[in-house]
Order: sequence, then structure tokens, then C-alpha cells
Amino acid sequence: MLRSRAGCPVTVASIAGAAGSHGATDTGSFGDRLAKLVASRESQVVLGLDPDPARLWPGAIDLAQAAAGDLAPAARAARAVAAHCALVIDATAEQCVAVKPQVASFERLGAPGWSALADTVALAHERGLLVIADAKRGDVDVTAASYAQAFLGETPTPFGTVPGLGADAMTVNPLLGRDSLEPFVRTAREHGRGLFVLVRTSNPGAADIQERQLAGGEAVSDQLADLVDEIGTSGTGRSGLSDVGAVVGATAPGRLSALRERMPRAVFLLPGIGAQGGRVEELAAAFAPGRAGGLVSASRGIVGAHERAGGDPAVAAAREASRLRELAWRLTA
Amino acid sequence: MLRSRAGCPVTVASIAGAAGSHGATDTGSFGDRLAKLVASRESQVVLGLDPDPARLWPGAIDLAQAAAGDLAPAARAARAVAAHCALVIDATAEQCVAVKPQVASFERLGAPGWSALADTVALAHERGLLVIADAKRGDVDVTAASYAQAFLGETPTPFGTVPGLGADAMTVNPLLGRDSLEPFVRTAREHGRGLFVLVRTSNPGAADIQERQLAGGEAVSDQLADLVDEIGTSGTGRSGLSDVGAVVGATAPGRLSALRERMPRAVFLLPGIGAQGGRVEELAAAFAPGRAGGLVSASRGIVGAHERAGGDPAVAAAREASRLRELAWRLTA
Repeated sequence: MLRSRAGCPVTVASIAGAAGSHGATDTGSFGDRLAKLVASRESQVVLGLDPDPARLWPGAIDLAQAAAGDLAPAARAARAVAAHCALVIDATAEQCVAVKPQVASFERLGAPGWSALADTVALAHERGLLVIADAKRGDVDVTAASYAQAFLGETPTPFGTVPGLGADAMTVNPLLGRDSLEPFVRTAREHGRGLFVLVRTSNPGAADIQERQLAGGEAVSDQLADLVDEIGTSGTGRSGLSDVGAVVGATAPGRLSALRERMPRAVFLLPGIGAQGGRVEELAAAFAPGRAGGLVSASRGIVGAHERAGGDPAVAAAREASRLRELAWRLTA
Repeated sequence: MLRSRAGCPVTVASIAGAAGSHGATDTGSFGDRLAKLVASRESQVVLGLDPDPARLWPGAIDLAQAAAGDLAPAARAARAVAAHCALVIDATAEQCVAVKPQVASFERLGAPGWSALADTVALAHERGLLVIADAKRGDVDVTAASYAQAFLGETPTPFGTVPGLGADAMTVNPLLGRDSLEPFVRTAREHGRGLFVLVRTSNPGAADIQERQLAGGEAVSDQLADLVDEIGTSGTGRSGLSDVGAVVGATAPGRLSALRERMPRAVFLLPGIGAQGGRVEELAAAFAPGRAGGLVSASRGIVGAHERAGGDPAVAAAREASRLRELAWRLTA
């Protein structure tokens, strides 16, 4: 039976180092910070934010129209996107433990889009939520270090230190191999942040490369899982969870147990719930290391709930987020 | 013997659709546009731009200091980065056919960094150069479409259409499989732009995943090469070159011939020349489909030439770019 929750949302201030501003205020490893926050918020739900300017909540358009008379389309669209994200966060924050902004959705609006992303990160932190930047970056070592600065760290310049986005974690692409992941691990660990490495994604095309069989008999994704475990072990906190997690699509529940065996300490970020067909009920194996061992991520399933159920977008989103939260929490009781 | 070149740099206006503003002015497929520009500029050199704010050319710092009194560090650093890129482009444009800005280097400066990237793209186009955004993006289909809008296309919004960065091509990561590449191909093809898919990168870690042997005997990178050929064939222009190219590190010349056999129509983008140890002389196989079949990319090798050779950064950079241009041009005579 699900316990009733405290009336007030848990705030950043109430959890030591739960959500980051920059570096200095963060204490503990990412795995431990996450485990604490999952316990106190009684939620494993990650709100995916991938705002399409053509499909924003009506209230966001109104707010942006009112505020932005003669700005260029990019600036006006970015304001509307930020307003939309704020409405969605306010509607669902109590049901969630983190937000996962999809960087592409902001980046396509250029510099104003990046500012909207920064505003969204700040608001999520104010609401006591962790921020997982869904960036899927991956590059050679020098460049990987730059991306780590952009999302998790900061950049020294002759004009002073430039803070990065301040995300608590980010998704990374391991195709370039171990040396391309190490700068991300280094920066994340220095700042108490985390990574989610793509291991088995939620789309049908995951079969093309990730599920190819290697000469040794295992799949490419098994190899990726071993890499995640290798680089993550030394970042394991008292919670038993590492600061290097894995993206494992909720659309392939059949792979969960095998991947969990290879990555006993990794937090699984499980996208693909709802719109892509994944079902929370099939994800039990993800939670073997504890309640914070799996994060249930839904984007359109929550934000577009009113398109299926009708009614007010905020009410429908809150109801769907609550439903997912209770399903996952009960599954891991 | 290398022919002497025309005195004036070839400009955008002189090559129909050589470098893009947005969509409407571009004619021809990316492969054909590239082949024309390589012929007219007599260059296969791509100038990599990955500015580190702590290692800019001294003139750029001076320019930024003078222009930016009380701006925040990010805005001042972004101005310095843009000034640096402008100096490097002005020094070397005549020797090059394209620039390849490394998106991470700009992104770590936030919204002002994105503006500096846009300024750099605009300047490169003014100088008659193509722009290859080194973004290495890859994501599920909806998100891939957003990244394609960000770099190659534009985004419809209720406030008007928001133009993307206006790059002529971008690098993409194929780990998520065919359905994750298709939105990039669609947008690129609509706008006469191109893609470079990661097949075999220039870093040592490429061995970890890309060079793993599959059950069928071939390497993962061979599989990636087949995917590139499949999605690229229908985008082949009169030049015989496709709009879907491949990133093949110059540090692994031993793999070039085999990969060329699997991708007879792809333009090879060959990073890793210079600082990473790649040598132009070993890249002949890349150029089998013609002079525009291979693009020789160097970043620190050109921009940091003065650190090895001494003297003025602009003179040293121009000399190194010229050396690479002549080496490659002669190799493909």
C-alpha cells in the first residue's frame, strides 16, 4: 500500500546537496544523492521535456504573446517554450524526482533556446527536482571534456570562470569507446554529478547496431553494459549505486534482466514509457539494486495526457504522472 | 605540378548554391555542390575550429577586451572565441574548402557561445567556405528531426519560422540505428545539405566498439559503412558523390581501402591529421571517387602551428594549411 506523502514538496534546501547549483554546494556521490531524493519524494518518475513549439500548452502561448511584442520569432518561441516547461513542471513536480530536458528541442531555437533551457534547469532545481540533460553527447577526449564542461562543470577563461548548464546528470553516447567517456566521468565525479550511458535505446533501430551479435556470442549492448560497469564501479556510493548509469529502453523489457546482471550498480534510466509503448509493470528487473535503481521516464505520455483523456492539460499531466509514480512505487515495495 | 591559383578567393556568389543561407538559394545535391567547390578552390582542406578560451590567438583576446567592458564572463569569452575564429578563417580561408566548427567548444559558453557559433558560420559563408557542424548528434526519430532542424533546416513555430544554424553539413552518430538517421537524411536532402556519419573515428577508443568483430566476421564499423551506403545511394549526384558521407579517422589508414569498398559514393571526412598523428600521404584510398571524395580535416595542426614553428599565428596557420592543401591536391592529381 502506498503511504500518503507529506503535504509540501521536498525542496533542494531540505536535502543536502540534492540538486546542484554549481559544484561547491553539492555533497555526496550522484548515486547517493539520487537514492536520498527518491526516498524522500517517494518517486522514481522522470518528467521528459521535449517541447515542440507547434504543440505547446495553450497557456504558454498566451503568456509568451503577452510578454514579447516585437521580438524575433526565435526569441518569442523560446519564451513560449520556457513558459510551457514551467507550466508542466509546476503541474507535475510533486509526482517526480527529476526532469529530463531534451536538449535538441531547445537547441533548434538557437541562443534564445539555450537561455530557455537554462531557465528550465533553474526552475526544476527550485522545485527540488534533479535535472538530467538528455544530450546524448559523445566525442574524442578533448571534445568530450568540453561537453562535460558545458553540461556538468564549468569552463575557465581569461575573463573568469563560465558556469555550465548545471545539470545533475547527462546522457552520453559510448560509440567512440572508453577514452571518450573518461572526461565525462572525471567531470561528473568532481562535481557530484552523474552520467547515463546509452546501452539499449527505446527505438526500433536499436536492433541495427546495439543488438548485433558479436563474435563472442554477446550483443553489442552487452559490451556497452560491461563498459558502463567498468567505468562506474569506482564511483559507487554508500547506497550501492554508481554515478555511471545506463539508458535502457522500457520498450525492451526482455533485455532488462541480462543487462542488470552485467551492471549491478548502475541506475537504469528507462525511457519509452507511454507514447513509445513501454509499460512500468514490466520493469521490475531494473529495480534490483533498490528503489532508485530505476528511473521511469515519460515525456509525451505525461505532457500530452490531455490529448487522450481530454480536460485541462495540467490536471491530465498531474494525473498521469501520479499514476506512473504509484505504479512504480508499488512495483518496488 | 600544382597549378597556381586565381588571385581572388572564390566567393559564395560565384558558385551557384555553394554555401547555404537558408534552403531556397541552394541548388544541387550536397555531393555536387562540394565537388564543384573543391574543383574551383583547388582544396580538400577542412579547417577544424575547436576554440579553447584559454588558448586563443593573442589578437582575439585584445579585440574582446577592447569591445566588452562590463559583460559577464560568458559573453566576453564568447566574443573572444568569435574573434579568434574570425582571425583563423581570415588567415586560412584561401587554402580551405570548408570549416568544421566543433559545437562543444561554443556550447560550453551557453547562449553567448551559440551566438558566437552563428557568427562563425556566417563569416565562413561570406568567405565562400562550406560549414560542417561537428555535432555528432544522434537520437530517436522525433529528436533527430529536432537536431536536423537545429543545424540544417528550420523550425516552424506559432511566431514564424525559426532558421537553424545554416550549416551545409553536420556529423551524426549512428549508434541508434537506421531510423535515427532517417530524419537527418530527409532534412539534409530537402535543403541540399549533407551528413557525415561516424564510421571509424580517429581516437584510440574507436577499437572498443567500432572495431569489435561481429558474429558474421566483419567489424561493427563495416556494418556502419553498409548503413551509410544504403541510406546514401539515393542521394547521389551527377558528381557520383552522395549527400551521406562518413567520418573515417586519418589515424587508421589501414582501414581506408576496406571502408571505401563498402561506401563507394560517400565523401570521407578524415579527421586526425597533425596533432592526432594522421598523415595525408597515407590517405590515397579515400579519394577513389575523385578529388572531392576525401576531405582532409585539421584543427590544432593548423590553428596551433605557431606553437611548434614559432612566429605569427596567422602566418604559421596559413603556411600549414597551404602545406596540407598541396599535399592532398598532389596526392589526387
